[in-house]
Amino acid sequence: MTNKPSFSCDYMEGALPEILEALLKTNMEQSPGYGTDSYTASAKTKIREACGTPDADVFFLVGGTQTNATVIRAILKTYEGVIAAETGHISVHEAGAIEAGGHKVLTIPHYDGKISARDLEDYLRNNLADGNRDHMVIPGMVYISQPTEYGTLYSRAELEQISALCREYKLPLYVDGARLAYALACKENDVTLKDLGRLCDAFYIGGTKCGALFGEAVVIPQHGLIPHFFTTIKQGGALLAKGRIAGIQYDVLFTDDLYLKAGKAGIDAADRIRAVLEEEGYELKFGSPTNQLFVALDDAERERLSDEVGLGFWENLPDGRTIMRIATSWATTDANVDRLIEVLRKH
Amino acid sequence: MTNKPSFSCDYMEGALPEILEALLKTNMEQSPGYGTDSYTASAKTKIREACGTPDADVFFLVGGTQTNATVIRAILKTYEGVIAAETGHISVHEAGAIEAGGHKVLTIPHYDGKISARDLEDYLRNNLADGNRDHMVIPGMVYISQPTEYGTLYSRAELEQISALCREYKLPLYVDGARLAYALACKENDVTLKDLGRLCDAFYIGGTKCGALFGEAVVIPQHGLIPHFFTTIKQGGALLAKGRIAGIQYDVLFTDDLYLKAGKAGIDAADRIRAVLEEEGYELKFGSPTNQLFVALDDAERERLSDEVGLGFWENLPDGRTIMRIATSWATTDANVDRLIEVLRKH
Amino acid sequence: MTNKPSFSCDYMEGALPEILEALLKTNMEQSPGYGTDSYTASAKTKIREACGTPDADVFFLVGGTQTNATVIRAILKTYEGVIAAETGHISVHEAGAIEAGGHKVLTIPHYDGKISARDLEDYLRNNLADGNRDHMVIPGMVYISQPTEYGTLYSRAELEQISALCREYKLPLYVDGARLAYALACKENDVTLKDLGRLCDAFYIGGTKCGALFGEAVVIPQHGLIPHFFTTIKQGGALLAKGRIAGIQYDVLFTDDLYLKAGKAGIDAADRIRAVLEEEGYELKFGSPTNQLFVALDDAERERLSDEVGLGFWENLPDGRTIMRIATSWATTDANVDRLIEVLRKH
Amino acid sequence: MTNKPSFSCDYMEGALPEILEALLKTNMEQSPGYGTDSYTASAKTKIREACGTPDADVFFLVGGTQTNATVIRAILKTYEGVIAAETGHISVHEAGAIEAGGHKVLTIPHYDGKISARDLEDYLRNNLADGNRDHMVIPGMVYISQPTEYGTLYSRAELEQISALCREYKLPLYVDGARLAYALACKENDVTLKDLGRLCDAFYIGGTKCGALFGEAVVIPQHGLIPHFFTTIKQGGALLAKGRIAGIQYDVLFTDDLYLKAGKAGIDAADRIRAVLEEEGYELKFGSPTNQLFVALDDAERERLSDEVGLGFWENLPDGRTIMRIATSWATTDANVDRLIEVLRKH
Repeated sequence: MTNKPSFSCDYMEGALPEILEALLKTNMEQSPGYGTDSYTASAKTKIREACGTPDADVFFLVGGTQTNATVIRAILKTYEGVIAAETGHISVHEAGAIEAGGHKVLTIPHYDGKISARDLEDYLRNNLADGNRDHMVIPGMVYISQPTEYGTLYSRAELEQISALCREYKLPLYVDGARLAYALACKENDVTLKDLGRLCDAFYIGGTKCGALFGEAVVIPQHGLIPHFFTTIKQGGALLAKGRIAGIQYDVLFTDDLYLKAGKAGIDAADRIRAVLEEEGYELKFGSPTNQLFVALDDAERERLSDEVGLGFWENLPDGRTIMRIATSWATTDANVDRLIEVLRKH
Repeated sequence: MTNKPSFSCDYMEGALPEILEALLKTNMEQSPGYGTDSYTASAKTKIREACGTPDADVFFLVGGTQTNATVIRAILKTYEGVIAAETGHISVHEAGAIEAGGHKVLTIPHYDGKISARDLEDYLRNNLADGNRDHMVIPGMVYISQPTEYGTLYSRAELEQISALCREYKLPLYVDGARLAYALACKENDVTLKDLGRLCDAFYIGGTKCGALFGEAVVIPQHGLIPHFFTTIKQGGALLAKGRIAGIQYDVLFTDDLYLKAGKAGIDAADRIRAVLEEEGYELKFGSPTNQLFVALDDAERERLSDEVGLGFWENLPDGRTIMRIATSWATTDANVDRLIEVLRKH
Repeated sequence: MTNKPSFSCDYMEGALPEILEALLKTNMEQSPGYGTDSYTASAKTKIREACGTPDADVFFLVGGTQTNATVIRAILKTYEGVIAAETGHISVHEAGAIEAGGHKVLTIPHYDGKISARDLEDYLRNNLADGNRDHMVIPGMVYISQPTEYGTLYSRAELEQISALCREYKLPLYVDGARLAYALACKENDVTLKDLGRLCDAFYIGGTKCGALFGEAVVIPQHGLIPHFFTTIKQGGALLAKGRIAGIQYDVLFTDDLYLKAGKAGIDAADRIRAVLEEEGYELKFGSPTNQLFVALDDAERERLSDEVGLGFWENLPDGRTIMRIATSWATTDANVDRLIEVLRKH
Repeated sequence: MTNKPSFSCDYMEGALPEILEALLKTNMEQSPGYGTDSYTASAKTKIREACGTPDADVFFLVGGTQTNATVIRAILKTYEGVIAAETGHISVHEAGAIEAGGHKVLTIPHYDGKISARDLEDYLRNNLADGNRDHMVIPGMVYISQPTEYGTLYSRAELEQISALCREYKLPLYVDGARLAYALACKENDVTLKDLGRLCDAFYIGGTKCGALFGEAVVIPQHGLIPHFFTTIKQGGALLAKGRIAGIQYDVLFTDDLYLKAGKAGIDAADRIRAVLEEEGYELKFGSPTNQLFVALDDAERERLSDEVGLGFWENLPDGRTIMRIATSWATTDANVDRLIEVLRKH
């Protein structure tokens, strides 16, 4: 391990101490497998309540790509594809997991990581309207992320528009919430868990990047929407034998608002850093209000910073500069933020 | 949680205390993701040493079905299938995970869960020998488990025969070691990790059922045998963001022979119970020498026992009786074994 | 080409002369593609009438494996498999086409190529009855062939039993009719096209082996049962650009009972040969009443016959003899039958 | 059938008369199945000679989507995708056939349907250069069409550049020749069959749109490059039982340069029409020198023309006009061209 504080990503530490405590405390209890234990049941109840979806089917999977691939494969029919932003995680960074499941990702433009209802409507109108489309993949669902790949947020109004379109065209709407805690805890955000429960057909509440050792909670508000999803999860190798390990973590995360508190810690750290970046005249990209900040740096600045703190490479700019990511999380310490700020100011 | 001791399966508790301690101790350290951390590196080194395979590629996945599906999909070519016992886990209990990856499971007979070299040779001779087979799935690898579904063990001589056949026919041999600790710790066993390293093309050292919270360590003795396996793991949704959570667990399991000790605890418990079952005249099935015992019970006996201890349903017998499974593990307590023995004697 | 008459299979010649005439006559007409032409429309109308299924969806595909793979993939859901005889064409001779589509073939015993309603019911009762089956592939449809791989026939009563079971368990029943003309033309047969239309959820009327250059007509009695099947056909590479080439062939086959006549020619030839085989004491296997005869021959007999006529290898018997297939078809000439009979009598 | 001449596509008629004659003449000959007949052997020999590839593996499949899906699936490994123009047939018009086979289509920009070596090199450099790409689909081959979707042609120099890049990066280059006859017969073309044989790793010589009833001939210059391709073809449902039907057609097409003559007929007709379009000031799009012409028409013109001749819809333009396709083929009659010209001049 290095002593240099790192902001390169938001999955560098273990888990919230409360989670480890609960794992310790329950460790030698015996419980049945595959998510049939009482901790999992309790976690499901709490999640249903938090989302305002009393009938929801809730499942706990392990990681984000797995969750996306499993949910999408379970929803789509053979001849259907999933609409996503061209920058969507499923479009680019899942090594072809959706295609390995037999389905095309149908990409539409993005605006700082978000799709627009207007583009979506155009796409749907052009691709569902007439019989000439029989030789093409038929859109079968819509995938978005909250926050997006670029840390940006859909407003409630935007989500409502997209949801209304999906319902008009009878396409399930699925929201990838890998970093949902950081959306929920963000001042700029007005989309609640209850909004997701009301507006989506499936979404997941990310754990891996939001305080858990691992785990993603899939919520399907309408009970039975995805028949035999348990078996599809098993088939996808996504079923935990010791399901309770995920159940306990979510039971803890949804006790005393711990999930929101985890998000808030990450957001507070990001806010402090963002303020300094702006003050010092760094060029921020994408306008992310959440726990990921994207800064355009020339080589000298990048090297100077990287000598002192870990940053994440994001992408090269045509002008020779580099966009670097500064990610905070539930685990970011004040000391590390102080150190980063000190380094940022020295330019 | 119930107070009735349960022997229904070997994944009812959390993890070895040493593992939880290590997770606690390292919890707030920062480390890079996806298995590039130092704990994972250390675990790989220890595993390579234990298996006598200094060049082996080692990967940590989450669960057994996932591991089987990912390894098999990575090894087979489009037109190939995997040979397995008709009772093999991949044949029956993985919800079609292999087929979902596009491949047929080619089944051959089993003897208490094991395949015979003779049947395998017959199959290979009949299916590779001539050009008439072009309309059929071509065998591309061989899958066995150690211990098997029925708790039985391949001897070193048997494994050598199967391995020699596989090499003659140029088919990779893959061993599912979901419960490998209980094989390694068993008196009847003469197959070591080094034998597996020498005789197999890929195998996994099971963690989920052998003391870890979760995790399976895939060992590919010949470096580079499976190109870009990392990307295939990602594509299969089997890549942990916080790879170190698996790495730390295996690093602990392969320190001070903890993996073998975990196995020995399960075997010792099973041996005590088996002795009583035999003494008391219960009918044992399949002759399992490892941590799973299979007892044929009539309804009255089954109900009497089930009132006192948890047993696992295995299968119905044509004579109306039921085979029930008694599984022990690293976590089985002496008190629970005492209680079970007491109940078993009262018949 | 050899001058030795061959009975090795039933796809050795081109097509019925009426089909070639129709292709010639219409050759330079212009018509729209992908089965939207008038010949295809006419063929569909005639098939709907012949099957007593006025609302049926009818599609023309190219070959048998393609048809099976496309229909089965279109019907099954992700987590389902198809039940078939262990000798079913999809189980053995399609190079894993069903598995390549992501689904397991769930095999049950066969009796001369047929499944029994009793075994099917046992299977369904055992595999659907309780929640313990969530880790296994869920049966999603039933596949049978008429005639079977061994030339045998389901009686109407048997088909009704199987159909009733399928409806009770809500599983679509699909019949592979690669050689259906030879069933329909067979004296022993009491299953009509109208019975298939009444009792099945999908079936195909084979063309390739029954007088066409190529082609298989899929009939889905209930309109809309398989949504967007056109797109699934396209996706499976099974859509003919010049759809009319198939349409014209079926339009001809279903004019003036040509399809039945083609079948009858094959059956008459087979009947003549079978009578001689029985008279001369040859050992017939499987009791096929249709256009495929299976004879057990020792090496000397096999060689003697094979010097004079082409026979098809079927399988080796444990006693050292070989089962050879004698296949007739719409194209079998009297002269060739005479020659075969002459050779058969000389033993 | 309508009496209005149609130019809507190039697969509206049957086949070249020579092909039907050959089918008629050989109709009642007996030959073995699955492409093991002497006509298929002869066709392969002629194609090998025409392509200057004496060792090539040659296979005959049925249609274009099927051929693309089968070849691509056979070449790619699990973790790989195929690079194609964003307008490539496999990207847009094959209903997700490549994805159904488990692989992503990796799109790069197009220029009138063509990719540039420069963009390809950029893509490869960015996507193969470093280890950061492990979470993304790995490029495994390159797909182009000759002519392209827009009727345009790669020059020999362009093809050589692309081929050199592919060899540098060890990616197989595959050329979709659905309309190859119209490229070969085009004055502007300098890419011969021998160039394809020299520069590609696989390509197909289209039959369906170039004079055959159906059929596409896959040429793999290096023998054995795709192991067990026969079984993959079978698995993909792409194997003709009566293989000779395709073999005879290609045997005829490659006798006396018939394939080139078929192409020339289509090109001559297109050239006459193009000259008039230019003379009369119609706006041609994409600059296609082959058998497909694309004309931008306003609604009034489009309706006026469509009353007299069949045109193919291509796409809507942002300015409200429509691009219509005029396709000629081996079957286009002088009379129909005369009629079209007459209509075109009347504006």
